[in-house]
Amino acid sequence: MGIVLGHNRYGKSEVRVVRVARRGDAHELADLTVSVALSGDLADVHLSGDNAHVLATDSQKNTVYAFARRYGIDAPESFGLRLARHFVSSQPAIHKARVTLESYPWQRTGPHSFVRSGQCVREAAVTVAGDQAWVVSGLSGLTVLNTTDSEFWGYVKDEYTTLPETRDRILATVVNARWRHSDVDADWDKSYLDVQRLLLAAFAETYSYSLQQTLYEMGRRVLAEQTGIAEIRLSMPNKHHFLVDLAPFGLNNENEVYVATDRPYGLIEGTVTRDDAPAAGEAW
Amino acid sequence: MGIVLGHNRYGKSEVRVVRVARRGDAHELADLTVSVALSGDLADVHLSGDNAHVLATDSQKNTVYAFARRYGIDAPESFGLRLARHFVSSQPAIHKARVTLESYPWQRTGPHSFVRSGQCVREAAVTVAGDQAWVVSGLSGLTVLNTTDSEFWGYVKDEYTTLPETRDRILATVVNARWRHSDVDADWDKSYLDVQRLLLAAFAETYSYSLQQTLYEMGRRVLAEQTGIAEIRLSMPNKHHFLVDLAPFGLNNENEVYVATDRPYGLIEGTVTRDDAPAAGEAW
Amino acid sequence: MGIVLGHNRYGKSEVRVVRVARRGDAHELADLTVSVALSGDLADVHLSGDNAHVLATDSQKNTVYAFARRYGIDAPESFGLRLARHFVSSQPAIHKARVTLESYPWQRTGPHSFVRSGQCVREAAVTVAGDQAWVVSGLSGLTVLNTTDSEFWGYVKDEYTTLPETRDRILATVVNARWRHSDVDADWDKSYLDVQRLLLAAFAETYSYSLQQTLYEMGRRVLAEQTGIAEIRLSMPNKHHFLVDLAPFGLNNENEVYVATDRPYGLIEGTVTRDDAPAAGEAW
Amino acid sequence: MGIVLGHNRYGKSEVRVVRVARRGDAHELADLTVSVALSGDLADVHLSGDNAHVLATDSQKNTVYAFARRYGIDAPESFGLRLARHFVSSQPAIHKARVTLESYPWQRTGPHSFVRSGQCVREAAVTVAGDQAWVVSGLSGLTVLNTTDSEFWGYVKDEYTTLPETRDRILATVVNARWRHSDVDADWDKSYLDVQRLLLAAFAETYSYSLQQTLYEMGRRVLAEQTGIAEIRLSMPNKHHFLVDLAPFGLNNENEVYVATDRPYGLIEGTVTRDDAPAAGEAW
Repeated sequence: MGIVLGHNRYGKSEVRVVRVARRGDAHELADLTVSVALSGDLADVHLSGDNAHVLATDSQKNTVYAFARRYGIDAPESFGLRLARHFVSSQPAIHKARVTLESYPWQRTGPHSFVRSGQCVREAAVTVAGDQAWVVSGLSGLTVLNTTDSEFWGYVKDEYTTLPETRDRILATVVNARWRHSDVDADWDKSYLDVQRLLLAAFAETYSYSLQQTLYEMGRRVLAEQTGIAEIRLSMPNKHHFLVDLAPFGLNNENEVYVATDRPYGLIEGTVTRDDAPAAGEAW
Repeated sequence: MGIVLGHNRYGKSEVRVVRVARRGDAHELADLTVSVALSGDLADVHLSGDNAHVLATDSQKNTVYAFARRYGIDAPESFGLRLARHFVSSQPAIHKARVTLESYPWQRTGPHSFVRSGQCVREAAVTVAGDQAWVVSGLSGLTVLNTTDSEFWGYVKDEYTTLPETRDRILATVVNARWRHSDVDADWDKSYLDVQRLLLAAFAETYSYSLQQTLYEMGRRVLAEQTGIAEIRLSMPNKHHFLVDLAPFGLNNENEVYVATDRPYGLIEGTVTRDDAPAAGEAW
Repeated sequence: MGIVLGHNRYGKSEVRVVRVARRGDAHELADLTVSVALSGDLADVHLSGDNAHVLATDSQKNTVYAFARRYGIDAPESFGLRLARHFVSSQPAIHKARVTLESYPWQRTGPHSFVRSGQCVREAAVTVAGDQAWVVSGLSGLTVLNTTDSEFWGYVKDEYTTLPETRDRILATVVNARWRHSDVDADWDKSYLDVQRLLLAAFAETYSYSLQQTLYEMGRRVLAEQTGIAEIRLSMPNKHHFLVDLAPFGLNNENEVYVATDRPYGLIEGTVTRDDAPAAGEAW
Repeated sequence: MGIVLGHNRYGKSEVRVVRVARRGDAHELADLTVSVALSGDLADVHLSGDNAHVLATDSQKNTVYAFARRYGIDAPESFGLRLARHFVSSQPAIHKARVTLESYPWQRTGPHSFVRSGQCVREAAVTVAGDQAWVVSGLSGLTVLNTTDSEFWGYVKDEYTTLPETRDRILATVVNARWRHSDVDADWDKSYLDVQRLLLAAFAETYSYSLQQTLYEMGRRVLAEQTGIAEIRLSMPNKHHFLVDLAPFGLNNENEVYVATDRPYGLIEGTVTRDDAPAAGEAW
């Protein structure tokens, strides 16, 4: 038996890049955090510290900034594709590059003034291996709440079950979604805004008997409307809001006053996919 | 010489309360974190562990929930006043109550559906001592950025100065503001939205030679327009965006590509006040 | 083509449980955060909101507390195994349970007094599928630094490379490690402390030409000494410490004064494994 | 009535500096975050953007690094004093400087190897105004827990009180303490370690009827043993550990299994002082 090197990768994480596009008086802003992870013929650096195959993570960082200047930043997906392809095509020892991007939305308050919208963060993850590429888009931190149209009953009652059934509860979650595109070419900005709108609408419009049902409907709605999306993965914590027992104070509480709890929380994770989706390959 | 008890206070912090107002089909949502701090005749509990003067922090928490049910939650300021007055008037040993509140804004996506807006958090701090009361409103986390109309030059050059002067830079900050009202009665919701709007407008419209100048103008604008506000305190980190040196890659960079840094950061703190403002008393 | 449900799971996350063992006057403390994720025949709840196969996450939480009382908490690994086996064996619809645990170390300051050690967090992840089980142990947040014996040179120089080579630098990282055991029975506490000691020793004793080399040596050392461990996965950010240029102030700086940066950071991820390791199955 | 500038200050926050002292083979490490806040004749920069009195925060940052090289870093208190005095004495417009410092403790694992101890963070705050100076030392994040010897009963029962009295509970808190020295010269490192030891001992040894009582005893112990300390301020959240009701599962729970909650939490703040303490001046 021997001890050997297994899967490995390395890169620069959390490169903060802001680009201003000055189209006349009305400036535009791209605000990204970019992370790069490279893998390939990297046994030597692990086994002996020989860096001959290592593109320094500092050089990766420089590449992000130089590309922002040279090519601009349009959508995170296309900026990521450009970067990932560069690393794989320019470095013989690098066989695979994964670039993940967070994009922070800003709202305009003047021709060259902005306020950051904290509603959610847009995300993208691009993988290039040889001449293949995969694009995953996403969002995180989209916090939503329905004050009614949510029930929870009919579940298993085991010896540790004390939760009472309910026909009317608050349903709240933080939507973290990532969706895989069938192709590596799309109108990324339009696609992103469409998916965000569909997720919000499906959450608001679904009469829910479980958060799983809501999750599935959100994913289904996206796939039904967005033919270029092969698969969507959703991770949604059940942000519990418990009715406060006010009886000790002579007060009823008919779905009016709740305590919002932090933890523990239910965590619901699910994938909605097409039955003829192209193979995921190294997309995730 | 002896060892004695000095200033002290205690209370329940970070009580999470959500209240749903069901006005027909269109529900409304109040989402607050409430903290209470009480002070008064509390020497015994410190010196001997005698709790006879102590209203348990658990009871304070219960009061928040019961009051949300009994009186509803209108503005954070008025909810806080109600709570603070209750503690001082109902507990003989308690001479002063300070209630601080964070309110999280939600945007409507349906009759009973909401998405949380992360643009900023609304805040209030209410102090009641005997029959006096003070109200401070505020906001935190309002992140703003101008891509131009900001210069920085003419500063002191000492032996440790290396910063080059600039006639065009990004100016970005996170506005944390608290303003003291002259009176304890106002249209709190309107006042809050007006101040938020004025802060955004003043930041966007001020041609800046220093963040201090921008800060002062933001405060001045609020006081000029809002006659009920006696004083405003602003704390604004200078979120530095540095131009990346792309010359090593044969690229110029004329105010296009920046690195956004986390720390260190400049921190600018300032107060703008009326010269005839009523005394602050125990407002802060 | 149709839209279908893919991989899914659900459970209660971040259940905080503290257990006091009162062995005479000297109490002992177990302080854990436990998360449960279950998968199985869960199509109905997604497709129609039928909860007949759903063990409420609230019941999962109750089980954690009841098991802490009924069986005590010895090692996180064995507590996790007990929980995971319970869910799979007692719920016909549940085919797989994954229980992840964080354990917070406390140091004794008296017979029943403790101070929390923040050096790192102990972790475990247990998976049970049918009658099979896998155990992964780990730690996170172990921050280490060598002031010398670290070089970095001989790397690729591409058109975006500006980093100067160095023969003496600070090497600092936060060790996040997870290691898979060959068997589901071991002296978990001894094993954990041994691995922690080996990781610290290997980091301190390795003369390093790259963080990858250090990572590999840390993993190799663990596998060489711990025969019951099949594989170890390490994720280690390169916490850059850059020499400050003090020449503008007439000062040299021979590896004395550094700026510690937050981001970006290099991120080095690697696996060290045995060439005859049993298959990982569903361990990860 | 007019609108005027009130209290203001500015400076560089969170400068991360690491200094290695190479005393033969055994290196020593100082790891600090330093923040500077200056005030003085700064009306012009606020009112008109005239920076003639402004020492750029970038220059303040440079000063921190240059001083670390020129003078070394011994204790945070003395490093802070040196910096604060420099700003006030070298800048005619600056009348007051406040330097706050966090120091991160590391434990040695080799001649030039270290592991960071997360038990707590050491703090210092130094203020210099003209030729006067004040030194405050502190620590934050020291998390302690007693499994017994804590009661809570005899408190006020108002209409919102539901908490049952207890004769045996877990008492847990995070100690955040700051203490003001009578003089600006001391053996800072010894003083710090002595105070940390006294706080831990007093927490462990005090039979408690309230967290206030424990807080006071902790402060009293420090002042009784450390004659150079004039005053100590403690802020201690009551990290509630609630007994879990296991009766629904046929289990008793005699102070064995607890849920550790995050919020809400009681927050106990108190000062212990000498009755002949020198005036605090601008120390805080």
